[in-house]
Amino acid sequence: MFFASDNWAGAHPNIVAGLSAASAGFATAYGDSALDQAVYQRFNEIFEREVAVFFVATGTAANSLSLTTFNKPGGISFAHRESHVIEDECGAPEYFSGGARLHAVDGALGKIDPHNLERTIGRFAPEIVHWGRPMAVSITQSTEVGTIYGLNEIETISAIAKQHSVPLHMDGARFANALVALDTTPAEMTWKRGVDILSFGGTKNGCWCAEAIVLFDLDRARELAFLRKRAAQLFSKSRFVAAQFEAYFRDDQWLDTARHANAMAARLGAAIEDSAHAKLAWLPQANEVFAVIKKAEADRLQAAGAAFYDWHKPHGFDGHIGEDELLYRFVTSFATSAEEVDRFGQLIAG
Amino acid sequence: MFFASDNWAGAHPNIVAGLSAASAGFATAYGDSALDQAVYQRFNEIFEREVAVFFVATGTAANSLSLTTFNKPGGISFAHRESHVIEDECGAPEYFSGGARLHAVDGALGKIDPHNLERTIGRFAPEIVHWGRPMAVSITQSTEVGTIYGLNEIETISAIAKQHSVPLHMDGARFANALVALDTTPAEMTWKRGVDILSFGGTKNGCWCAEAIVLFDLDRARELAFLRKRAAQLFSKSRFVAAQFEAYFRDDQWLDTARHANAMAARLGAAIEDSAHAKLAWLPQANEVFAVIKKAEADRLQAAGAAFYDWHKPHGFDGHIGEDELLYRFVTSFATSAEEVDRFGQLIAG
Amino acid sequence: MFFASDNWAGAHPNIVAGLSAASAGFATAYGDSALDQAVYQRFNEIFEREVAVFFVATGTAANSLSLTTFNKPGGISFAHRESHVIEDECGAPEYFSGGARLHAVDGALGKIDPHNLERTIGRFAPEIVHWGRPMAVSITQSTEVGTIYGLNEIETISAIAKQHSVPLHMDGARFANALVALDTTPAEMTWKRGVDILSFGGTKNGCWCAEAIVLFDLDRARELAFLRKRAAQLFSKSRFVAAQFEAYFRDDQWLDTARHANAMAARLGAAIEDSAHAKLAWLPQANEVFAVIKKAEADRLQAAGAAFYDWHKPHGFDGHIGEDELLYRFVTSFATSAEEVDRFGQLIAG
Amino acid sequence: MFFASDNWAGAHPNIVAGLSAASAGFATAYGDSALDQAVYQRFNEIFEREVAVFFVATGTAANSLSLTTFNKPGGISFAHRESHVIEDECGAPEYFSGGARLHAVDGALGKIDPHNLERTIGRFAPEIVHWGRPMAVSITQSTEVGTIYGLNEIETISAIAKQHSVPLHMDGARFANALVALDTTPAEMTWKRGVDILSFGGTKNGCWCAEAIVLFDLDRARELAFLRKRAAQLFSKSRFVAAQFEAYFRDDQWLDTARHANAMAARLGAAIEDSAHAKLAWLPQANEVFAVIKKAEADRLQAAGAAFYDWHKPHGFDGHIGEDELLYRFVTSFATSAEEVDRFGQLIAG
Repeated sequence: MFFASDNWAGAHPNIVAGLSAASAGFATAYGDSALDQAVYQRFNEIFEREVAVFFVATGTAANSLSLTTFNKPGGISFAHRESHVIEDECGAPEYFSGGARLHAVDGALGKIDPHNLERTIGRFAPEIVHWGRPMAVSITQSTEVGTIYGLNEIETISAIAKQHSVPLHMDGARFANALVALDTTPAEMTWKRGVDILSFGGTKNGCWCAEAIVLFDLDRARELAFLRKRAAQLFSKSRFVAAQFEAYFRDDQWLDTARHANAMAARLGAAIEDSAHAKLAWLPQANEVFAVIKKAEADRLQAAGAAFYDWHKPHGFDGHIGEDELLYRFVTSFATSAEEVDRFGQLIAG
Repeated sequence: MFFASDNWAGAHPNIVAGLSAASAGFATAYGDSALDQAVYQRFNEIFEREVAVFFVATGTAANSLSLTTFNKPGGISFAHRESHVIEDECGAPEYFSGGARLHAVDGALGKIDPHNLERTIGRFAPEIVHWGRPMAVSITQSTEVGTIYGLNEIETISAIAKQHSVPLHMDGARFANALVALDTTPAEMTWKRGVDILSFGGTKNGCWCAEAIVLFDLDRARELAFLRKRAAQLFSKSRFVAAQFEAYFRDDQWLDTARHANAMAARLGAAIEDSAHAKLAWLPQANEVFAVIKKAEADRLQAAGAAFYDWHKPHGFDGHIGEDELLYRFVTSFATSAEEVDRFGQLIAG
Repeated sequence: MFFASDNWAGAHPNIVAGLSAASAGFATAYGDSALDQAVYQRFNEIFEREVAVFFVATGTAANSLSLTTFNKPGGISFAHRESHVIEDECGAPEYFSGGARLHAVDGALGKIDPHNLERTIGRFAPEIVHWGRPMAVSITQSTEVGTIYGLNEIETISAIAKQHSVPLHMDGARFANALVALDTTPAEMTWKRGVDILSFGGTKNGCWCAEAIVLFDLDRARELAFLRKRAAQLFSKSRFVAAQFEAYFRDDQWLDTARHANAMAARLGAAIEDSAHAKLAWLPQANEVFAVIKKAEADRLQAAGAAFYDWHKPHGFDGHIGEDELLYRFVTSFATSAEEVDRFGQLIAG
Repeated sequence: MFFASDNWAGAHPNIVAGLSAASAGFATAYGDSALDQAVYQRFNEIFEREVAVFFVATGTAANSLSLTTFNKPGGISFAHRESHVIEDECGAPEYFSGGARLHAVDGALGKIDPHNLERTIGRFAPEIVHWGRPMAVSITQSTEVGTIYGLNEIETISAIAKQHSVPLHMDGARFANALVALDTTPAEMTWKRGVDILSFGGTKNGCWCAEAIVLFDLDRARELAFLRKRAAQLFSKSRFVAAQFEAYFRDDQWLDTARHANAMAARLGAAIEDSAHAKLAWLPQANEVFAVIKKAEADRLQAAGAAFYDWHKPHGFDGHIGEDELLYRFVTSFATSAEEVDRFGQLIAG
């Protein structure tokens, strides 16, 4: 009953098999091997256009380099107050850019409220040297609290970014979970809706270590190559990432594992909904479930072997949390089994 | 006949097996899993004392963060003119530190000349704000041109660093190759000779992606944890590195693969020595062989399927290179076979 | 009727005379002249203890280097949402530190609310590498909206900072105005209340260009010397700053000019209070007056030659601003004359 | 007999008078006052074209921001080994740029040798992410050792920079001294010979604190405005610099003081040449004189009240320095009097 995080799982057997299969033989280093090239091409197909792909080591690197790609002195990027770039990256985005600021924007349940974005970004005149100036907008899909921007919502935010002449970045650490939830295509969820650069995560969805920046603004690709190398994010045996992505995409495995994780979250949500001892905080849309549970009950569940964390109350959550209750997060993944969820369901039903 | 680089090889079967074996099940993320902890303990044993171990994505990251661990404003690190930190890292060490300088020191065949170091470092008074001040000394073991510092040589350089109150960093991208060549222990080759921080590389010696910073100055460990995270070098599924290192160290495999690579280099060197068409530039000490070959002959070898690069003439090489000749580098690895070397030997003997 | 800013004034005649008097003759450069030394000693006397003094070019430099003095990876400084470091320095504090973050804390009328500070800073555990960690607290005295922290208030904030093991910085761009308003001593308003580092501004109070960092934590002085030089803030002819400060402190001129500016603000406030066309937004405490005025009336005043700016509504201002009204800021200085204020009074009374 | 440095002098009486005259009255801050604007216009006239002018606090700031204007990841600027940017700025150029490197180029007597530049810069392929790539060339006019690039020499270096698609920066801390020595115009010595950005120094030639960046590439002006502000180099009472430059340029005073300083250097050089106790190391071309003197004799001169420093032997100096001799530097300025020089002449003749 491991619901602590989707990065507590290891790697999917198919990923392991793909990695093993690619381990023999010699190949050019630093991202130029035939396998790397084939995977870049695969990204083109998946996104239905030419994209520039840069493998990196971590989601933090993908986010930080993405924002730094559009860096400018006095630059300010706008992100949700509870976004990963603001809350969980030890200031890496600021560090990579040499000090560009992240400005928190509020919005209910992990999603930037367009009105707040409009008002916030509108305070910064692009010509006044004192105040700082807009540099980028960053959204997370799916969000830190398991919600999802609809395609129209992405378009709305993108339009605001465009009005202020800044690019839109998407943190897609859980890209696949959102994609299958919306039942849409990668192209629709990104560049067709105005996304300029994407952190494309494979690690949480079954890879060992497979993160990529997908850049739609090809004019910046050459500079990003230097940015990545300077940031010590260019793997010598880059094909070990390529091999993972090759297996990830083969036969739409990535969509299958994401669908499975989402289904497990729904199943877990239903179990919680059925329980007298817990209530869903909001409806899970991807692979994260949030519930309000009595602390004593949660302690009991954890003592019985369920791993999950309490979580801070997100902006815009208007449900009631009693004095003896806390908000808890449960994350599912490719490795979550129905049996495991059902076992938890029995436990919480108790 | 792939002698282009030791990072053209894939991963050793044992590494692949170890990684596969660790892929199932759930485990704490970000370096805290039981496997991670066991591997840290393994490092302690190998180095015969407590060390602080930080997995990172690339050798460039290991070097850059190592130097940044001792960062100070106006700081200057001293490294060999042809060192990897100066020549091949796109300025990452300067970037990570926010501008600390690398100062080139000359010395024959890839090794810092102690007299040059003494003279160079001695020019910088630690109290004068205008000039910059010594921050670290960095050596590479084995060097970029396949030579090796003897234990006494490390001690001599360390003593100079200590006299100027700066730490000694060792870039050990090819640590194992040097270790077996000297037939010594990790402790003897590092902290017992005054090394304060080590970039410990596993990738070139059979791993997919296994690099670590080994810090002997434990007081700085807490800060390095933040430095690493801020630099986007903290893996979520860190155990994928731990699993590689676990297999790497098991039954001294890392020493076996290094010995093999060195033996293949010696065999290759002998084949070159025997040839009328090439001459060894200097004696190989680890897993790199440098030879002076007529360009036409090298073209012929490459056309016949041998992969290797030409190389710039290192400082202190006093051999003759004719007008129609070039200097070439050949690198062997765990994946180099005796058959492959012999095939090349026959080719060059022709 | 120039109430636009206290940096629209030139230099006080005594400052000019002092600068002229010091212009002849030769003296050591880079802050080591006899005059520089004498002024450092003067600072010791004024602060009733040994302090380390660093002249810099701008208030932004003083603030940015002050915070960078306590820099750490993942560091977060806490400042009022409307503080100069957050709103008006183009990200210089983040830039100088290589990316340390500024976290906005709310509070009424320019002053950090201690409860908000406590709650905000308390969210960051100093040991968790993901979140960032507290690095400093920064307050502005007097604030951007002309209010003043009482000595007890400084002590309260300082205590919170100490509890979280971080230093307290004071942005004293208008230090003298607060000092005379509180009728206290520099020592009482700073280190005796727990301030660790101070941006000491002379420019707004009659100098041409005289800003200093006053560091109470002497152990960090040597590093700050390097930080300043590396930031290109070490003047060669440093005595041109020393000469200004020498004149500034002589016969307590700095207190006289500050008292004058404050008195002019009070006089201006009274004139506004008397007017039927305007109302004071809050009581001026130093040399800044904020008033709510009908836009049409403000236009008339400006057309008649009064220079002043409209201002954004600060957090915690609960006064009414009508649809046809705006909030306006008026700043007085050593150069503001009673005649000028009275002329404005007549104008607004009209 | 103050020959230690041209920044040991105070300010020229005309500068002081100009500054005093501008001290009264109110004016827009941050470089937008009428006086600032007039001075920008004056720069246009002096350079015979439109230029973008940015006042900064120090020569180090001018150099560091100039190079940062053309910053790129992995960027390398090429400067003379003994240049101020490399030897005397505590790594500020690297710091401002977030780590771009300075690469030393040799050449006799302070001037970059074009062949060395060509060979050095040619080693860096602009497309390879590992090595770093050319970003700028920087020359100093007049140089640190008092020599001067002829106009053709500037053109030659500029041509090499252009071939490698990088801009040419001129460190003009002693611009006026070179200008009058060459008897040419500012336009001829800069943009007409391919200089793209200039550190224009007034401080050493009689100002208190008057340094400017003169940018010929106007497309970059907007960004440089942000770079300067973010670097805390935008003065609030900017007109205190403008007033100095206004007086500096009026009636060609800057050329007069530079001519005077150069004449004093020539007179000093002649006195040294006439002495049996010293010999000129090379012919002074601007306001710096270098002489080889017995240490005992130098001690005697210093004991008699002459201030001057010993200096390290520059690259390309092939004169003889005996075991009991040292190389010494003497700098003259607007404040050096003929009487003072003659007094020194008598002393050294003794």
